[in-house]
Amino acid sequence: MTESASAFVPGHVTTFFSVHRRRTPAETGSRGGGITLTNGVTVRIEPADELKISLNGTELSMDPVTRLLSELGVIASVEANSPLPLGAGFGVSGAATLGTALAANQAFSLGYSENELIELAHVSEVESGTGLGDVVAQARGGVPLRLEPGSPSNGKLDGIPATGRIEWHSFGDLSTEAIISGDIDQLSTAGEAALAAVRKQPTLPTLFEVGRRFAREADLLVPEVTEAIETVHTTGGEAMMAMLGRTVVALDTGLSDAGYDPAHCWIHPGGATLRSDDIHTRT
Amino acid sequence: MTESASAFVPGHVTTFFSVHRRRTPAETGSRGGGITLTNGVTVRIEPADELKISLNGTELSMDPVTRLLSELGVIASVEANSPLPLGAGFGVSGAATLGTALAANQAFSLGYSENELIELAHVSEVESGTGLGDVVAQARGGVPLRLEPGSPSNGKLDGIPATGRIEWHSFGDLSTEAIISGDIDQLSTAGEAALAAVRKQPTLPTLFEVGRRFAREADLLVPEVTEAIETVHTTGGEAMMAMLGRTVVALDTGLSDAGYDPAHCWIHPGGATLRSDDIHTRT
Repeated sequence: MTESASAFVPGHVTTFFSVHRRRTPAETGSRGGGITLTNGVTVRIEPADELKISLNGTELSMDPVTRLLSELGVIASVEANSPLPLGAGFGVSGAATLGTALAANQAFSLGYSENELIELAHVSEVESGTGLGDVVAQARGGVPLRLEPGSPSNGKLDGIPATGRIEWHSFGDLSTEAIISGDIDQLSTAGEAALAAVRKQPTLPTLFEVGRRFAREADLLVPEVTEAIETVHTTGGEAMMAMLGRTVVALDTGLSDAGYDPAHCWIHPGGATLRSDDIHTRT
Repeated sequence: MTESASAFVPGHVTTFFSVHRRRTPAETGSRGGGITLTNGVTVRIEPADELKISLNGTELSMDPVTRLLSELGVIASVEANSPLPLGAGFGVSGAATLGTALAANQAFSLGYSENELIELAHVSEVESGTGLGDVVAQARGGVPLRLEPGSPSNGKLDGIPATGRIEWHSFGDLSTEAIISGDIDQLSTAGEAALAAVRKQPTLPTLFEVGRRFAREADLLVPEVTEAIETVHTTGGEAMMAMLGRTVVALDTGLSDAGYDPAHCWIHPGGATLRSDDIHTRT
């Protein structure tokens, strides 16, 4: 009954967020907004005698992935591949965890529903301190707004109807764990105000404007990102900082026009999915 | 501020359902399960002096689309294109309505969120008597389970984690309106039992098995479809009837193996989205 299986999970840059710690990890999470990306993480799972996790061919430890597999009661080799840097605000750990959940369910015929798999991946991220909202956003796709925190049975999502080209450049990582486990009152106040503003006008330009204000008010800006955002703005583009990374994200050709040499992708139209070779050969 | 805009909405075949009439059209809907398809409806909206709706180049009237545009307060030319037949159980009217909502929001810069657009499209379908659950399923994509009826602020969705090739053949149409406005007690009892069974084991084979039982118990089977399902079964495949159409749907190569000459597509990995020419050129 076991076979190998693959899943694709879009990257997710958070624009703004507030932290909501509740009684259980499934209820705990963040409110906020962000953008899912066609640059994401592909996860291939194969039953194995001992746990092995690799990212782009390099073995590493990823606490939420280990936790999830242990919760599922299976031992597997997890091969993740991604063009996105780890720890730079793209939700790579959330993507690897959710991709592992989807692919392991298939490979081991575990019989979970999608909401159950999303909840298991969300709980693993929360318990590992590596993320609070990426998993539910990545399961949904598009430009997700997290109206209420937590797993699908607890949280509530909406989205900004939008599509488009995204450019990004990363100057390096920031520790999610250090920030979301620290004093987050000021950050959460700014995050709640940002969400209210975006709900009033759910468009991409508003999302970017509100994101820039959030980064300032939550005191998360780093000099390289500030400079990049200003340069993009000067050349008529829209840019913002990816939470939480030393990463700048721009709409369309914003970073190229400003003289940077960015990577680019698109807003991902859907959420995380099992991969079918048939589908991928075809589209 | 106005421009033309396009959206793609996957087709949706319902496997089983129960009808739930509530106080408002937004709360009204169906519980059930189904499959969304990469065969779907592309809708292009252009501001115009008078309302005009076409499907594959032929002008026609589509009550839920007219109702929706009137609700949005805009006048437009709506060009829908689809490889799917109308009235044959593929949710073409729901797809045209949801696609119109997404594209009109973009073309006229209306500033609605995705949940709001889904609700407007769902309400238009319910008020027109043309559908109860297609719109929310098509907004989600994949293999959606409608756990609670109604628009996003009322209903609740889950999904079967699955991907795969789908074959279909249609022998003609059945009137959704006549069936869902008639006596639906027996149908709804069978639909509730089917949902409980699929929630217990959320896999594609269960979805198909439960769908066949539902079609029998709800007394909806038509002779051509019954024969096709049996022939596919005999050759080792999985097939079911699309609700509500004289249409048979099979997994993988089920219908070809049984000697039919079916159309084919795939399970659609995501939900309805605005179309970006950039994205479609790329993938």
